[in-house]
Amino acid sequence: MENLKASEAQRVILGAVATLGVESVKMERSLGRVLAEDIKANRNLPPYDVSAMDGFAVRSVDIANTPATLELIEEIQAGSLPTKTVQAGQCSRIMTGAPVPQGADAVIRVEDSKVISTNSIQIAVAVKPGNFIRPHGEHMHTGDVVLKAGTEITPGVIGVLATVKAAQFSVYRRPCVAILSTGNELEGMDEPIDPNKIPDSNTYAVMAQVQALGIEPVLLGIARDDPAELEEYLQRGLDYDMLLVSGGTSMGEYDYVRPCMEKLGVKMIFWRVQTRPGHPLTFGMTDKTVIFGLPGYPVSSMVSFEEFVLPALRHMTGNQRLHRRTITARLAHPVKTQPGRTEFIRVLLTHTDAGYVANTTGTQSSGVLLSMARADGLMVVPADCKGLAEGDQVTVQLLDGSAFQENVCYRE
Amino acid sequence: MENLKASEAQRVILGAVATLGVESVKMERSLGRVLAEDIKANRNLPPYDVSAMDGFAVRSVDIANTPATLELIEEIQAGSLPTKTVQAGQCSRIMTGAPVPQGADAVIRVEDSKVISTNSIQIAVAVKPGNFIRPHGEHMHTGDVVLKAGTEITPGVIGVLATVKAAQFSVYRRPCVAILSTGNELEGMDEPIDPNKIPDSNTYAVMAQVQALGIEPVLLGIARDDPAELEEYLQRGLDYDMLLVSGGTSMGEYDYVRPCMEKLGVKMIFWRVQTRPGHPLTFGMTDKTVIFGLPGYPVSSMVSFEEFVLPALRHMTGNQRLHRRTITARLAHPVKTQPGRTEFIRVLLTHTDAGYVANTTGTQSSGVLLSMARADGLMVVPADCKGLAEGDQVTVQLLDGSAFQENVCYRE
Repeated sequence: MENLKASEAQRVILGAVATLGVESVKMERSLGRVLAEDIKANRNLPPYDVSAMDGFAVRSVDIANTPATLELIEEIQAGSLPTKTVQAGQCSRIMTGAPVPQGADAVIRVEDSKVISTNSIQIAVAVKPGNFIRPHGEHMHTGDVVLKAGTEITPGVIGVLATVKAAQFSVYRRPCVAILSTGNELEGMDEPIDPNKIPDSNTYAVMAQVQALGIEPVLLGIARDDPAELEEYLQRGLDYDMLLVSGGTSMGEYDYVRPCMEKLGVKMIFWRVQTRPGHPLTFGMTDKTVIFGLPGYPVSSMVSFEEFVLPALRHMTGNQRLHRRTITARLAHPVKTQPGRTEFIRVLLTHTDAGYVANTTGTQSSGVLLSMARADGLMVVPADCKGLAEGDQVTVQLLDGSAFQENVCYRE
Repeated sequence: MENLKASEAQRVILGAVATLGVESVKMERSLGRVLAEDIKANRNLPPYDVSAMDGFAVRSVDIANTPATLELIEEIQAGSLPTKTVQAGQCSRIMTGAPVPQGADAVIRVEDSKVISTNSIQIAVAVKPGNFIRPHGEHMHTGDVVLKAGTEITPGVIGVLATVKAAQFSVYRRPCVAILSTGNELEGMDEPIDPNKIPDSNTYAVMAQVQALGIEPVLLGIARDDPAELEEYLQRGLDYDMLLVSGGTSMGEYDYVRPCMEKLGVKMIFWRVQTRPGHPLTFGMTDKTVIFGLPGYPVSSMVSFEEFVLPALRHMTGNQRLHRRTITARLAHPVKTQPGRTEFIRVLLTHTDAGYVANTTGTQSSGVLLSMARADGLMVVPADCKGLAEGDQVTVQLLDGSAFQENVCYRE
């Protein structure tokens, strides 16, 4: 297949790559992974009706007329059990999380009470039955599925796993990813500066994109434009679950990557997609390895990763949310676009009372990686768009680093 | 200070905590850190005018009338230099990234050409000077500051660091964080199930919140409600840059945390904030350690972390963006709120053509951590709000795990 629409390319990729197998992981090391098993509650929580406050357990009928003075009969700490039943005119001191004693049907906060003497408490407010009581099983009942397979493990999920004491559990395996750059023009990190060469930034930008998904990739280095050398490097890359090759996939004479791959038994599934940047993307498979040929330009390579490699990696790791979150913004200025391909334009976002405003990051040349370093997001321009005016509403995919903002949102 | 407004509490905290010192880090291990030095360009990029495409370098005047047939005089690969000047009626084959030869002022794509014979090329399109040429220095000039101190290191930033071959550089140090839970009612992960106790989820939920910021915290365990034991644990926590203590900070009789801290020389700066949940938050300092007393309820503890601890940690690590990103959503249903405190309500987000729709995650009881595990974000309800109606526009802070979505946003 050749020159697919962006959504077609994505469908083909997600149809071809499979979620990997499972492995066992300790809870402390599980953040960001995806559960491969249902997690069930192993207890009722709370195990009985408990107090939601530090205060006094009372019979609501006793305090219908306030102030009401009650006899203090007991003190119940969290972690201990009541020993006395609250009778008419009585109350027990109770701590947050402690079991509500028999007889009592409400809790009064410390703040709404006054100690009259060692065993006499004055209550200032009338309340309904159930006040400040958390009913037993409010959080979970034994045997309930509290977390389903496919759940991404966030801090809140970790809290629930700790609640049911799941110290170790099954998650989907993360893929092993290899990264290869190609081209005679590339200068390695350790090589001296040669003005006739271009520093190899793709290896490291793609490395970081992979790392941002919690995966530590293997860097294969730079293969020169020589069929034998390229074949050797590619062969090494086919040992991994995924091989990302940047450069060498366009139509130039010296682009050996595709023929080399075919020689090594890679089934080429498509080449070229209708996006700007990122047109010369290729996608292939072996029985074992998913292969992406990323464009050589740094920005193109990074954008192709965001749109096509990232959803594939998240799918392989069992995630159900595969795509970058999008928000809506208003354009701060007109933007020229060329219809025919889905366009990804790097933008800065500013937050105003009327919502987000997007400014492009200056030059959109695919060679200017600084535009990607500065961007908060990628504005997605539909393929049929003939140009955008100031104030137009646009869709922006949020990039890494944009999860936080400078201003806070309280109003008091 | 007591019972601060949420924004006041945040101001007090951010005024009291300082950005930590710097340390050197290798580029491969720098994702998510914050640059503590300006990074300068060490070369011009591109070093000369280069071709943006695989194709032919031509004189634009020669192809004003098409089709034009030109004599092919040379082939210039990326990484090599041209040896011949393009004269009238001539062209050179050129690869993406290769230097444009003298005489030529434009590049024609392979797709817009036809090979007539070994040394004769037919060009199908007329173009303006500069076509498909990336001017020298378009990306950066030697000595330019390409990244400023204070920049968060994202994949795009890593690409730029690799471009200027910054293999190692200064970043702000990350704080060492200790986590302590307190309370007789707590049951440790390794202890057998006791229906009279509550599993200690706070230690692990807070651990994961700290891990999500790239920091590996130290877990001190559970201190029982005994002044001597508590003092011993707290003392240990004061060896770290930050100590997070959950539980034991409300007004109950057995809340020893505050007096114990004061005994150990902690200067208590404030207690209680006007938020729901998270009211019993405390904040203190020693010369060395920032101390937060988090509420004992799991949800309260997590929300307090998001609102107050997270900005402090990000400030300590040199970040300029301290707060969770917010989006705007429409409420799917009415929500009862109590005026007087800033309220944080856990919501699920769904994306529609008309923007985001927020649904609350069911019970908002502070004891029901499942609501936090399921939430995409925290809806921030201003302190003066008397209730929200269906369709009201609300502000939602995005939580970890919400950086991705199920649907893609192309339109073709």
